[in-house]
Amino acid sequence: MGSQKKVLVLIANGTEEMEAVISIDILRRAQIEVLVAGVEVDEFATCNRGVNIKPDLIIKDFSSLDASAYDAIIIPGGLKGAETISSNAGVQSLLSSAYKSGKIIAAICAGPFAIKAAGINKGGKITSYQTFKEELENGYVYVALFFITFKI
Amino acid sequence: MGSQKKVLVLIANGTEEMEAVISIDILRRAQIEVLVAGVEVDEFATCNRGVNIKPDLIIKDFSSLDASAYDAIIIPGGLKGAETISSNAGVQSLLSSAYKSGKIIAAICAGPFAIKAAGINKGGKITSYQTFKEELENGYVYVALFFITFKI
Ligand SMILES: [Cu+]
Repeated sequence: MGSQKKVLVLIANGTEEMEAVISIDILRRAQIEVLVAGVEVDEFATCNRGVNIKPDLIIKDFSSLDASAYDAIIIPGGLKGAETISSNAGVQSLLSSAYKSGKIIAAICAGPFAIKAAGINKGGKITSYQTFKEELENGYVYVALFFITFKI
Repeated sequence: MGSQKKVLVLIANGTEEMEAVISIDILRRAQIEVLVAGVEVDEFATCNRGVNIKPDLIIKDFSSLDASAYDAIIIPGGLKGAETISSNAGVQSLLSSAYKSGKIIAAICAGPFAIKAAGINKGGKITSYQTFKEELENGYVYVALFFITFKI
C-alpha cells in the first residue's frame, strides 16, 4: 500500500482543541504519521478552551519545511488560532508550495482563512463555519454545506 | 441558577486524549469551570495517541483535595491512563469521599476501573468499553449500553 502517509497539523494559541485533537487522534488510529507543529508557540499552545497542548515540533520558519514531505496539512479552527496560522508568512509559503505539489490542504471552521491568506485556489470553492462566510466570499465561491470533502 | 459548577477531570500518561479534551471543551462551552488534574504526571501527560497535554493542576496527593468542592469528577479512558488513575491511592480516597458527598463520578471507556478500585457503589450498575466487561462484572451489575447516563 505504498509508503507511510504523513500529515502535519498546525496549532497555535487559540486553536480549537477538539478540532485539533480529534483530527490527530483519528489519523493516528488509522496508522498515519501525524506531526503536530506549533505556530508562534513557545512551549505549548493554549487552546481556545484553555487546554494546553505541547506540539511535537516548534518551527520558527515554516517556509523552511519541505512541503512535499507531507501528504496533507490540516488547519484546525478556533478564530484566534486560525488568525495566527493564516497571517504567518512561513505558513503561507508552506501552504502555497504544498498546494503546487498537489498535496491535501484541509481546514476546519475558521481554518480556511489560511487558504485565503496563502492565495490558494483563488476563485474556487470554499466552505467554513458560517460566521466566516462573508470574509471568504471575497475571493472564493462559498459553498454552505455542513460537511464537505474535497481536494482543492 | 445558583453558584458556578466546578468539575475535575483527571488525566495521566496514556489517557485517551479525545475523551479528555472533548469532555473539557464541551463543559467549558457550557460555562462550567473545569480543572484538569494530572495524576502521576510531571509536566505533561503523554496521552494514548501521543498528544501531550499540560494539566492545570499537578497534584501529588489527591486525598488532600476537598471532594465537596467539585460537582463532578470525570475519569476518561485510555487503558494505561485509567490504570494509573485507578491504582492511585489518593484518587481512590478522593472518589470515595466525593461519592459519599453525593457528587457525580463520571467515567468513560476504561475509566470505570477507577470506580471499582475506589470501591464505590459495590453491587450497583456499571458500564464501560466492552473489553472491560469481565473485570467489572466481578463486583457490579454490568449493563451493556452504548450510552448510559446515571448518577451512581
Ligand atoms: Cu477509550
